[in-house]
Amino acid sequence: MPERRSRPLTVAVVGATGAVGRTMLQVLIEREFPFAELRALASPRSAGSTLELDGQRLAVAEARPAAFEGVDVALFSAGGAVSGELAPRAVERGAVVIDNSSRWRMEPGVPLVVPEVNADDAADHEGLIANPNCSTMQLVPLLAALRDAVGLERVIVDTYQAVSGTGHKAVAELQAQVEAHVAGRPAEASVYPHPIAFNALPQVDVFLDDGYSREERKVIDESRKILHLPALRLSCTAVRVPVFTAHSEAVHVETREPIDPDRARELFTAVPGVLVVDEPAAARYPLARDAAGRDEIFVGRVRQDASLPDGRGLAFWVVSDNLRKGAATNAVQIAELLLARDWLPPAWRRAGRPA
Amino acid sequence: MPERRSRPLTVAVVGATGAVGRTMLQVLIEREFPFAELRALASPRSAGSTLELDGQRLAVAEARPAAFEGVDVALFSAGGAVSGELAPRAVERGAVVIDNSSRWRMEPGVPLVVPEVNADDAADHEGLIANPNCSTMQLVPLLAALRDAVGLERVIVDTYQAVSGTGHKAVAELQAQVEAHVAGRPAEASVYPHPIAFNALPQVDVFLDDGYSREERKVIDESRKILHLPALRLSCTAVRVPVFTAHSEAVHVETREPIDPDRARELFTAVPGVLVVDEPAAARYPLARDAAGRDEIFVGRVRQDASLPDGRGLAFWVVSDNLRKGAATNAVQIAELLLARDWLPPAWRRAGRPA
Repeated sequence: MPERRSRPLTVAVVGATGAVGRTMLQVLIEREFPFAELRALASPRSAGSTLELDGQRLAVAEARPAAFEGVDVALFSAGGAVSGELAPRAVERGAVVIDNSSRWRMEPGVPLVVPEVNADDAADHEGLIANPNCSTMQLVPLLAALRDAVGLERVIVDTYQAVSGTGHKAVAELQAQVEAHVAGRPAEASVYPHPIAFNALPQVDVFLDDGYSREERKVIDESRKILHLPALRLSCTAVRVPVFTAHSEAVHVETREPIDPDRARELFTAVPGVLVVDEPAAARYPLARDAAGRDEIFVGRVRQDASLPDGRGLAFWVVSDNLRKGAATNAVQIAELLLARDWLPPAWRRAGRPA
Repeated sequence: MPERRSRPLTVAVVGATGAVGRTMLQVLIEREFPFAELRALASPRSAGSTLELDGQRLAVAEARPAAFEGVDVALFSAGGAVSGELAPRAVERGAVVIDNSSRWRMEPGVPLVVPEVNADDAADHEGLIANPNCSTMQLVPLLAALRDAVGLERVIVDTYQAVSGTGHKAVAELQAQVEAHVAGRPAEASVYPHPIAFNALPQVDVFLDDGYSREERKVIDESRKILHLPALRLSCTAVRVPVFTAHSEAVHVETREPIDPDRARELFTAVPGVLVVDEPAAARYPLARDAAGRDEIFVGRVRQDASLPDGRGLAFWVVSDNLRKGAATNAVQIAELLLARDWLPPAWRRAGRPA
């Protein structure tokens, strides 16, 4: 056994006071990740505050280069700018960074990993591994199962995304708008360009020149990278809905070979971390309210896609907690993977290390 | 001019106390439909009550066969069972029925009409004309424009449907659940099988054996009938979201010939009743909150579908008030069409009538 495995680990969470960061700390504890020290790091504004966690108090320190001395694993969820600046500083100091921002996801040489789908991609990391976008995360394990069994021709996914994906401020904004509604006052919007309460906003992130939003582009590009299908035909409309937690997705997949819903349910059931909830006649199907706080990806409403009468297609409905599997849980799973396979130091260090 | 045109009309609304029925009465008045008498009809339970309408009081009478004596046009929105029983009784008495339930929509010989799309289908009516489902209504004028210009290969539509489509009780249920949330109480559900507040329910209407919901089946079958494309490849996932009024739809269309977004916007702009709202960079796109209370169909987020790289496809976002264009306004437009073209009496009566 290499020495690294037996040494107690120091784990840092950057953006520890944010919606995803707090969930990362919680998931590390829940899943009993073997850390000896846990460092909560955040912006200078939040540094000095204290987090209540599992009955314990955790002091928040400033996320600056020196804070990564002695860190083995750093989970980042503090936005692309912070990751762009600090992740390389952490890697220089010997940490492996698992980054939840979009900053490094499409960078050649940076593995973009969903452990159930492309764990082996993590082997060759050079200190930096990217965590996919939440909308992509809950989709790719199901697409991978179909890719392997019957091949993928074309995928359409329309999202129903929760406000917690935007962060604490968006959660507070929906809450404030709902309170205003009950009190008979007009809704005020500042996080989103329009009221989100009792509305459906066809905008998640900013728009690109081709009319797609960045969120839609992320789903397309990241799915292609994770699935190793660089030319996969995929389209997406990303929509924010007045839901606090858990994203839902309506998915329509055109497959290369025919597949029936029973076979698809079998395939999905076999994917680790996926739960099939599919008894529509009994009103049992995945729901955002049920998925919130859970680590699984829930799939249901599996049916032959009616627009593909030769059986080469499926429609289904996927729901997952965007803060957990969609972000924090997947990041922790990547850390667990690195530990289990002894991939924690970057590949080049492992290569130079005495056997 | 035939005598009928000059005679003042008697118009009945069946289901006058329901969400759509009340809107029908309102739209008849707003659009100055030339009635001499307006009869508000409803179930025995509601008969005897009074409606406030445009500052006037309207007594509600019981919807029974004799109530249709002397009626020229009857707009029905009281559910399939009532339409099945009473619509033929009204027609026997000389009324033309425009029915908003699903009871007669797919019946051969019953025209299913969206005036902007297939007005001529109304010519051959035999006393009964069906008003399409709300989700279908806002979709088909846009599909018809694409069908005529570039041909339709395949359509995917995922819906974000408002609770008012279910009726007053569902509106009250969402309101009560939101009030409970603000007060810190749990949500109680009875109209829907699960809480609708802060949730997305992938169920609209009941489920069929093939896994599709009846709502999804309606969108498929009714679109095919209205568009005169009985084999159109169309799939749909119908989802209820916590929005009070106006349905939104994410649409992905594969076309026979290539089409670019600018041309599509031109085509959509030329459709009567359609408003293109499409400046995403300025956060201008169709929104349920903006469409509520309006008669138009709003379309935006028009872009080349990324899953069809040869330009033979579009993605877009459609929003319309489900109670107005999605139900009441279209029904009144059908009545206006019959009047304007002198199609008010059934075809067989017109044929037998002295010239």
